[in-house]
Amino acid sequence: MFRQVAIIGLGLIGGSIGLALRKTHAARRIVGYDQNQVAREYACASHAIDQAEKSPADVVQDADLVVLATPVGAIRAILRQIAPFLAPGTVVTDVASTKAEVLHWAAEILPESVTFVGGHPMAGKEVSGIEASDAMLFHRRIYCLTPTAQTSTVAIKKVCSLIEVLGAQVRFLDAVEHDSLVAGVSHLPFLASVALMNTLTEDSSWPDAAQLAANGFRDISRLAAGSPEMYRDICLTNSRAIVQRLDDYIKHLSALREKVATQEQEIDTFFDRARTSRIQWQAAQYTDLTDK
Amino acid sequence: MFRQVAIIGLGLIGGSIGLALRKTHAARRIVGYDQNQVAREYACASHAIDQAEKSPADVVQDADLVVLATPVGAIRAILRQIAPFLAPGTVVTDVASTKAEVLHWAAEILPESVTFVGGHPMAGKEVSGIEASDAMLFHRRIYCLTPTAQTSTVAIKKVCSLIEVLGAQVRFLDAVEHDSLVAGVSHLPFLASVALMNTLTEDSSWPDAAQLAANGFRDISRLAAGSPEMYRDICLTNSRAIVQRLDDYIKHLSALREKVATQEQEIDTFFDRARTSRIQWQAAQYTDLTDK
Repeated sequence: MFRQVAIIGLGLIGGSIGLALRKTHAARRIVGYDQNQVAREYACASHAIDQAEKSPADVVQDADLVVLATPVGAIRAILRQIAPFLAPGTVVTDVASTKAEVLHWAAEILPESVTFVGGHPMAGKEVSGIEASDAMLFHRRIYCLTPTAQTSTVAIKKVCSLIEVLGAQVRFLDAVEHDSLVAGVSHLPFLASVALMNTLTEDSSWPDAAQLAANGFRDISRLAAGSPEMYRDICLTNSRAIVQRLDDYIKHLSALREKVATQEQEIDTFFDRARTSRIQWQAAQYTDLTDK
Repeated sequence: MFRQVAIIGLGLIGGSIGLALRKTHAARRIVGYDQNQVAREYACASHAIDQAEKSPADVVQDADLVVLATPVGAIRAILRQIAPFLAPGTVVTDVASTKAEVLHWAAEILPESVTFVGGHPMAGKEVSGIEASDAMLFHRRIYCLTPTAQTSTVAIKKVCSLIEVLGAQVRFLDAVEHDSLVAGVSHLPFLASVALMNTLTEDSSWPDAAQLAANGFRDISRLAAGSPEMYRDICLTNSRAIVQRLDDYIKHLSALREKVATQEQEIDTFFDRARTSRIQWQAAQYTDLTDK
């Protein structure tokens, strides 16, 4: 049971955390802050929070758990704003998509009396904004935590209780390892989708082609609708890992391009391999769920 | 009303055409052939066809409409097998994903007393095989036809009646233009998905990364589960157009890679552009449907 949870950033993730806390009665009080007034009002009206405050400094006072649910690019400034107002023993966590940079900022900015536990829920939607919030957003999803050797067990347990409330599964990871893995399974897919979309729409044939685009195109272009600001911040804070994955991807595409150009008859062995991997991945997802 | 429709290739598409003809009572009789005995039996049992025949030659006799629903790689051989057995006036159509090569084969192989009309329904599923058949598969989908200046109006009308039965919308296109457009909106997305899947799974981090893969990865990797044989045939018959699109895609990815590497602050303008295009495309899809 949390005494007072402060959520900074009332978008899809922050709003969904508030709704899940509400639904499970896991917090005596939930307060929130967002720079956008409409989001603050919506959060109150939807009962994702009990009350909105007018600044990050106001919202963290009296909180035993602070959740930073802003884009990663805003976190450094917010840590600076809240640091002087955090009561000793407060646990601060975040939900940002990259972790190594965030951990550096927290170590640099927060007082020693406060513990920071980096977090990243592997959940999302095509749409963003608090209007899309959903108490079940994290249900059965993986929720990464990246504590260091210095992180107190009490603080880790506190964030684990939150994750339990959300219905998610904790996975502990080193921050740098986390960033490399998500560069592959999350950031590269976004960039692949963006590049595909821009490749097609910048071609003069797009108005005609758009009418022939069917399910396959719909699936692969869906990610391109993700928040530009969030992914900009991701690229800026995870540049090295993303570049490695992009280089790998371009290498694989160039190899495929050669096989298509030379009309290689056995090109289907590459398709077979991808197909098998995808089917195995999907089967494992299904097993994970039914095992519970 | 068709007298006798012969469907060669009893997979997802062939089976779905059979079911749609059955549901609408649009054919007095539906006969089918597939090299796979299980598919033949399934087609009969599910009433996608009235009767299965043992060869392409047997199945086309007495048919007024022949639908070739095999992978594009099998079409040339089948045209050779059926050509001597087609009654004068028979209309032959196909559903293959590439059209220019198919049109060449038909012109080369079929007798002058028979009309070929190239077709390509823009519908599909992640899964293939007759078990996945669905009478509604083509409902409100675009169905491309690529008649030439020589194609008789009577034959075009006959295939248009089939498309009407399927609940799809006809779009007339030049075969080469068709192949270039689908190289962009269909073949490139498949190859992008395959290359992404192979990039990730061939990396030693895959077992760990797979557990963090969430919705975005699921969407973008879905296409990689497509039929390897079908896409091999597509690559072999549409090589030039696909290579052009791949080159374009690799160029866009390389430009993005440079922006990530140099931590360009305005990288979000590229994400914004992709996002807007995706949203516009999706809105147009929705309008197309609600306009009916």
